[in-house]
This record gives sequence, structure tokens and C-alpha cells, in this order.
Amino acid sequence: MRIVDYDRNPEEIRARITRSREPDRSIGSRARSILDAVRARGDGAVLEFTRTLDCPIIDRIGLRVPDAEIAEAYPQVDVRFRKALKAAITNVTRYHKRQLPRSWTIKQRGLRLQQRFGPLKRVGIYVPGGKAAYPSTVVMNALPAAIAGVKEIVMVTPCNAEGKILPEVFVAAHECGVKEIYRIGGVQAIGALAFGTATIAPVDKITGPGNAYVAAAKQLVFGIVGIDMIAGPTEVVVIADDTANPSYVAADLIAQAEHDELASPVCITTSQAIAERISDEVDRQLENAPRRAIAAPAFEKNGCAIVVKNLDVAVDIANALAPEHLEVLVRNPSRVVRRITNAGAIFVGEWSTEALGDYIAGPNHTLPTSGTARFSSALSVFDFMKFTNIIECTKHRFLELAPHIEVLAGVEGLAGHAASVRIRRGKS
Amino acid sequence: MRIVDYDRNPEEIRARITRSREPDRSIGSRARSILDAVRARGDGAVLEFTRTLDCPIIDRIGLRVPDAEIAEAYPQVDVRFRKALKAAITNVTRYHKRQLPRSWTIKQRGLRLQQRFGPLKRVGIYVPGGKAAYPSTVVMNALPAAIAGVKEIVMVTPCNAEGKILPEVFVAAHECGVKEIYRIGGVQAIGALAFGTATIAPVDKITGPGNAYVAAAKQLVFGIVGIDMIAGPTEVVVIADDTANPSYVAADLIAQAEHDELASPVCITTSQAIAERISDEVDRQLENAPRRAIAAPAFEKNGCAIVVKNLDVAVDIANALAPEHLEVLVRNPSRVVRRITNAGAIFVGEWSTEALGDYIAGPNHTLPTSGTARFSSALSVFDFMKFTNIIECTKHRFLELAPHIEVLAGVEGLAGHAASVRIRRGKS
Repeated sequence: MRIVDYDRNPEEIRARITRSREPDRSIGSRARSILDAVRARGDGAVLEFTRTLDCPIIDRIGLRVPDAEIAEAYPQVDVRFRKALKAAITNVTRYHKRQLPRSWTIKQRGLRLQQRFGPLKRVGIYVPGGKAAYPSTVVMNALPAAIAGVKEIVMVTPCNAEGKILPEVFVAAHECGVKEIYRIGGVQAIGALAFGTATIAPVDKITGPGNAYVAAAKQLVFGIVGIDMIAGPTEVVVIADDTANPSYVAADLIAQAEHDELASPVCITTSQAIAERISDEVDRQLENAPRRAIAAPAFEKNGCAIVVKNLDVAVDIANALAPEHLEVLVRNPSRVVRRITNAGAIFVGEWSTEALGDYIAGPNHTLPTSGTARFSSALSVFDFMKFTNIIECTKHRFLELAPHIEVLAGVEGLAGHAASVRIRRGKS
Repeated sequence: MRIVDYDRNPEEIRARITRSREPDRSIGSRARSILDAVRARGDGAVLEFTRTLDCPIIDRIGLRVPDAEIAEAYPQVDVRFRKALKAAITNVTRYHKRQLPRSWTIKQRGLRLQQRFGPLKRVGIYVPGGKAAYPSTVVMNALPAAIAGVKEIVMVTPCNAEGKILPEVFVAAHECGVKEIYRIGGVQAIGALAFGTATIAPVDKITGPGNAYVAAAKQLVFGIVGIDMIAGPTEVVVIADDTANPSYVAADLIAQAEHDELASPVCITTSQAIAERISDEVDRQLENAPRRAIAAPAFEKNGCAIVVKNLDVAVDIANALAPEHLEVLVRNPSRVVRRITNAGAIFVGEWSTEALGDYIAGPNHTLPTSGTARFSSALSVFDFMKFTNIIECTKHRFLELAPHIEVLAGVEGLAGHAASVRIRRGKS
């Protein structure tokens, strides 16, 4: 892993922070053409893309997974998986229940104002698949929706060529309240959820991670449906001082790097010696890493250890990067944690490894990437809710406020607004 | 205004509910080319588009409005405006302070989990302008940002050919905590806020209404910065029974229609007689309406009174339309209000006219349009905040959870995640 001295080479670090990512227009236009086809031809287009890209026998087995197939998954999964899933569900449920917003009312001199929360009616969860199974994605998306009170939770996930989906995904979906499962993925799945087809009723919002095409499709349908966020490649920043265990830091950087060749495993440290030991440990641990083929390129492209002169500089760089995940492995972490303003999630101390948060600690693992932690947050129960402002005014208070409304509407040239007040004052 | 009997003509109403609006690609591609120019050439492009589209003398007067020009606005505004503005600020502040989320912590057997809220650092507010002034837009966007704790609130608003902006907008901006004002509008203003230029530092999020080009530009920069929502033409649905005052209903429909030729003024009523009287009143009041040229086409294109057999049907139609504004003018409104699930804001009873909410009641007037109230909410303090999940785990609890993490990472094929746990258990 490359080691960069920040004082000697600040430009290189600043270049990483530049946020004007040039969008890949070819991905966007490919996504757009698939969406157009799904909008125009519905199931026919969804079947066609699924047949070609994922599963030649899709027409025979159908888009929707029958309940029987989900029931058959249970005996196929290991009991240890069932136990681990149960522990994850318990912790994620506890954290997300705490997020539930409460409706409230302000009453003041003839004005009764209410902010009333309610769940979305129908949401779609995108779960990547194909070769691998991601039950944790199911947990982190479906549970918050269920806790929010969403009645119709729909899941889409691509099947393999034989039409199969891994049984752990079915079990997680069933345990987390998913009501319908369709064995489709990619842009065509996003289109089906957004526009609806004869088989799949349209949803109100789509959440969940996906590749660059899925992300582009979500951006394009935003406005027709809600979306959670536009996910980019995953990132971790570890802030470490000379008390950090280099083996742990290296292992955590590799855990992030193994997701994607475009992942960013970054360490910021006050110690040149620790930087070197982390770098050596990364090399050593990568040697036998099963996912070395993905992780090694990530280190080459985006990995680095940044040596800084003190923790304040480390905090400034971390805030500018606004990473998805931030680990704080220093002598006195609370001082650093307090100063961090931009991070999807913060992992404090050497036992709070990121994998703990990915699977089981309780908070959501769906986090803002690509610097979007500057303005957005982890997925939460509120992503599956909305509120309505309710306004109720007495005649007396209305007449008191009416002259102000007429003045303001007058300034804005909105004569009809003023007239709607004047007519109630008996002046029209 | 056309009167439609729902039972006889349900297809017409259902066609309104269809949400697959075909996007206007020519607007999107024009917006994209202006954004590309601003990204590539910064101030030069912003000046060029402003010079051509808004103000030929922009190079001489500069993009940023000097503080002196803002101070000079105060003596130019009417004292009644100052009083009305103050009343609006008081009420909007009270409501939005109530929205402030609180950070919280869960401690449980060695796990310390915190959801910590904080403000965005820098936000940009788009205020339409040119011929008209919209101080209420300033209030409804800048105040929630200021209450959220945002330190840098930037406003962009187009000037006229002489470089002027109406003084009421300056006064509202100054009173609501806006720190920088630039006299630019359109797609070029959105680009400047998103990418930054030599003169204008980039922001973290852009909020505020605009025309179709501004909306398209906001959608395109979403991901680089946050945005509030993609605003479409404004809408009102009035649910009225035979107790509703037809003059009031007509006045409120016109108040909405005067915004935009594409506005949707719709009434749903259980009474054919009331529908006819409302229709007559609309015609009568429109005759002398100063903004008739805008309002009349809105009634022709999108206006209608829908006659239904009972209020349950009215509620179902309203929920399917998911209108930006919903007025409930019926004998027993609470029964109807309780059943409404999709509406940006609800105005209850004949004194709670929409203009009250637009200007002064307290809740935000920036509301979801085009059916997006199915999945989104009014602008709020939380739009200017974000949260970070903070995870802290003891060694003891980590070792207890570790086997579960290894099982789940194993199912997902993420060997590096499992290794990051195993190494802490001393097994690597």
C-alpha cells in the first residue's frame, strides 16, 4: 500500500477530495433505453432482458417466486445461519425501532398545526445476487420498512441461469416481512418496480444497492418513485495513531477492499512507523486472501496510508473525504469522534470493527458513499415514512393574520391568493 | 370548470392518476449542456449565460450582491411588509424548531450505539425571480436551514436586465440568515452551486423551487449535491360536501391556478349542486382576476370538479392523486383527515385557506408535487441535517457476536470480513 506524507504531497490528497466525478454517460444511456423498453412493453421487456442477461428459462418459471419455493428454502439453510440471522434481526430491530418518529401537534391561539407521520404503502427492495447471496442486504432494507409500518414490501433479486436464488436470501426475506419476491435484477427490475407491469404493481420507493447500471436507473426513475440514495463504490477511512494494532487495521482495510476493485481503503495515521507496519500487514494478509483478485486492485487504484502531523489534520481530511465508513483507532477516540462531521458511520475502538456494523451491531449498513455523507445519512426507518403537515385555523385567528397574508401576496403579485383571503373577510 | 361524474366516467379520473409522466428529454439535454459548460468553465460560463438570458451588464456589476446593496433595501420596503414578514418568521420558526431531531444513544451489554444529528455545512437556496419577488420562498427555505444550524446559507436569484432584485427579497434573506447572495438564476445557478466556481464555493445541498429547466438541472446534479425535491406544477384538491362555501372553494382553486398554466385546480364533491355553484363562482371570480391569463388556461387544461357518491370515494381519489395541497371543507372533517394518507399538506375547515399555509401559518409551503406525496414530505429542518451512526463495542460483547458475524460473512462469500473478525479472536 502506498504511503503518502500529507505535508509533502497535499495535492494528491486534495485530488481525492474533488467531488466533480464525471458521470459515465454510456451507462446512463444504456439504462435509459432499458427503462424505456420496460415502460413501453412491461412484462415482455422484463422477460426479454432477464432471458438474455440472467436466465434463459425465465419464461417457463415465471417472474414471481412462488411461496412454496420460499418455504423449501428453510430446510436448506444451516442452523448456525438461522441463529446468526436471528441475532442480527434482534439488534437491527432494536436500533431501528428507536428511530420511529412520533407525530406531534402545536396548538397556539386558534392555530392547530400537526406534523403527522405515516408509512409508505408499497416499497421495492433491490438485492444484488446471481453468484452470491446477500441476506444482510435483505435485513438492512426490509426490516426498517417493516418497522416503519410498510404493508407491501417487495423484493427483486436476480436469479442464476437455472432460475435459482440462494436459500439464505429467501429465509432472510421471509423473516424480515417481505411479501413478494421477483427473480429479476438489473435495470429491468428497477423499471418494473417504478412503472409497474401486468405482473408487478408499481411501488412508491426503491431502496437497496446495485452496480453502476442499477444506480443510474435509480437516478433516472427518481421523481416517479422515491429512492434511498445513489450508491457508489464502498469506502473506509481508518484514523489510527501509534496505539492502533496494524494487523487489525490491515484486516479491516482488506475487508472493505474485497467488495469492489473500485473500493477505497484509506488509512490516515500520525505515525510513519504504523503506516509502514500496516502496509506490510496488508501485503502479508493479502497473500492468502481468497478475494485477493478484487482486493489487490482496490489497494492499487485507491488505497493509501496518509501520514499526518497530528489528529486534527486527520479529522480535517476525513471530513473532506466524508467517507462511508470511518474507524477511529486512537488513544483517546472521543475527542476525534466529536470533531467528525461527515461520515456515514463511525466505528470506535479496536473491537468495533466494520464487519460488526455490516452484519449485527444494529445500525443500518446502507450508508452514503462518494462524499454524499456531507448531506445525507444512513438508511433509516424514516426512509420508509413520510409526514403530512395539517393546518387548522379558527375564524378569529384567521382574521388576525389575514392582513399580513394580503400584504405578502401583494408583494409577490399573487392577486388570487390575496382574493382568497379578502373574500373570507367579506370584502369581495 | 368542467364537472365530471366519477361513476359515469371513472376512466378520465384514473388517467389523471397515471404517474408515468413522459419526461421532456429536450429540457433535460439543454440543462445538461449548460451544466457541462459551468463544470468546465466556471465563472466564465455563468457570466455568459446570465449575460445572454437575464442581464447584459452582469460582467460590470458582478455575480455577488454586495452587503451595501442589501442594506439599501431596508428603507425601500413598506413597514407593513416588515410587520408581515416578522409574523411569518415567528410562526415558521416556532413550527420548524419543533422539528429539530435529537441525538440519542442506546447502551446495551457492551454495545454503545448512537444516532448523532448535525447540520449541513453549506447550502444553496434557489429563489425564482426576475419579474416577481418571492420573499416567502426565502422564508420557507432559509429559516429551516438556519434553525438546523447551517452556518453558510447561500441564495441565488435571477436579477432583471438592470441587475436589480426586488428589495423585499433582500430584506427577507437578511432576516432569515442568508449569508451570501448571487444574482444568478436558471441552470447556470444550479451548476455554480453544485460544482463551484472561482467566485462561488460549492454547496452541500440545493433547495428551492424553479421552472422545468431548474428542476431538470437539480435532478442531474443530485448525487454531487443533495437536493430537496424535483418540483412539478402546483396542485390543489378541495374535498367539499354540501356545507362548503362555493365562493371560498372557487377563490382557493383560482389562487392555485394563478401560479402556472399547468397548475391543477381540482375539487371533489359529494354534491352535484355544489359542483355547479363552484363552477359558476370560478367563472365569475375569474372575470376580474388580474392573473386570469394564467389561471384560465390552468382550469381548461387540468381543472375539474369531480362528483362522487360519498366521501369515502373522495378520499380514495385524493389518496391516489396524492396532491401537494388538500383542503377539507366538509361537515365532519376529522373523519376525512384521518383517512388521508397521501398529501403534502392538509388544510382543515373554511378558515384554513391555502394562502394561510403559503405565507404564515408555520408549516413549510415547499411540498411534494406530481404524486410524490406518496413517498415524500414537506421541506423540513431535517432536510438541512444528517445523522451519523456511531458504534462502540466492548471486547466481551464483540467476542460474543463474533461467531455470528463469521457465519453471515461466510454465507455472503466475504472472506475478508470473516478474517477481520477472526484475527481479533487470535485465530489468524
